[in-house]
Amino acid sequence: MHILVTNDDGVLAPGLLALTQELRIMGDVTVLAPDHNWSASGHVKTLDRPLRVKKVKLADGSEGLASDGAPSDCVALAMLGLLPDKVDLVVSGINPNANVGHDVTYSGTVTAAMEAAIWRVPGIAVSLDTPENHFDPLDYGPAARFARRIATAVIEKGLPEDTLLNVNVPCLPEAQIKGILATRQGLRVYRDLLVTREDPRGKPYYWIGGEAPTGVPDEGTDFGALAENCVTITPLHLDLTAYKALEEIRSWEW
Amino acid sequence: MHILVTNDDGVLAPGLLALTQELRIMGDVTVLAPDHNWSASGHVKTLDRPLRVKKVKLADGSEGLASDGAPSDCVALAMLGLLPDKVDLVVSGINPNANVGHDVTYSGTVTAAMEAAIWRVPGIAVSLDTPENHFDPLDYGPAARFARRIATAVIEKGLPEDTLLNVNVPCLPEAQIKGILATRQGLRVYRDLLVTREDPRGKPYYWIGGEAPTGVPDEGTDFGALAENCVTITPLHLDLTAYKALEEIRSWEW
Repeated sequence: MHILVTNDDGVLAPGLLALTQELRIMGDVTVLAPDHNWSASGHVKTLDRPLRVKKVKLADGSEGLASDGAPSDCVALAMLGLLPDKVDLVVSGINPNANVGHDVTYSGTVTAAMEAAIWRVPGIAVSLDTPENHFDPLDYGPAARFARRIATAVIEKGLPEDTLLNVNVPCLPEAQIKGILATRQGLRVYRDLLVTREDPRGKPYYWIGGEAPTGVPDEGTDFGALAENCVTITPLHLDLTAYKALEEIRSWEW
Repeated sequence: MHILVTNDDGVLAPGLLALTQELRIMGDVTVLAPDHNWSASGHVKTLDRPLRVKKVKLADGSEGLASDGAPSDCVALAMLGLLPDKVDLVVSGINPNANVGHDVTYSGTVTAAMEAAIWRVPGIAVSLDTPENHFDPLDYGPAARFARRIATAVIEKGLPEDTLLNVNVPCLPEAQIKGILATRQGLRVYRDLLVTREDPRGKPYYWIGGEAPTGVPDEGTDFGALAENCVTITPLHLDLTAYKALEEIRSWEW
């Protein structure tokens, strides 16, 4: 069993280390992750510049690889043969914030798992649903252990083609987590605001600011189940066709 | 009617100019597009740095706005109030290459329209299915005229919530185009290869290389309809939940 671990926070992020250490119980783990933070960077394929890869030492003394590409580039590099051994499973994370609802197309954590699905390798994205006013350091232990349980199930049962899993874990001690629920993608509510400032030369610049996003806690959704202190597994696929709308548009006359 | 035009090739790309000129027949058009190429950049929300916006002159002497953000950032900036007037429609393109199958989550052209859908504004991505060995300059005229016809239909009939349109136009004279088909997202076949080189200091670097992607021309798909010289309209939505897989995963025991 050969598992590729990546993330979007950078190879030295503590969430990646916790995930790596736990997944080593299952098999050989190769870490190939970005050398810097790529949060909200989306699904990237870097074609206009070459990519570098260098060896790094993780905080536990083990070896990893860092690339100047995006999380999805790291997965592509591994699949394209940068790693000599075939990869059986890609696990991305652990992201320090939830990836629910509309987050999934922005998220570097999730798009790394998307890239795995494109290469027909099972991919799992793992995120911790950290409350806004948390205190560092975060305990990634429970999320790492749930990630291993879910990864083990994926290896045992397989995933349908074109499908990845988006996993979110409440930021709670294990005893307070109520179970694992398969969920659908819920509705995110972004509360972005434009913050306009002036530089020292009087020229404007713009921040995408505002409060952290919230969500609609509908039953059966990722956001709803997290609000009930459950681990969520949302299976995602890469066919974005809106089939209902397709029927309607077929009736349009030209 | 106020239309925002953006793209992922940069504000001075000829495809954007052709689209802008054609859409001016429908109403007021504001151009707000990236100041450089963002192809295959994915769905981005830039939160870790501020964004700049400057006025630029398009090749026809009209005024546009260029941002150092991604295509989806340009849409977000407009929606957040950078533009004083409400936007009724976002049209992104015209991309000089088709965006079909799995391209949609990578594509800056398509993710700009996704961002519009998140803001509950109709979004249309328009791409030209240019053959590999084409000669410049490309004729964006037919694609621009189809874009206007489709945009007019969208304004008249509306789009379901959470839905955007991904439009691809054959790179042919209008008389050779056989019609407009509503299609589903087909299957892309990537033919990427790892190209390893050494820099002048003997250190390796890696290109994602290989041949241009192809696709499976299944009936009813974007790729299949383009092969039949039809314009394709693929409605996409932002609920990526794999509902079939969800039923299966619900049966997993923990």
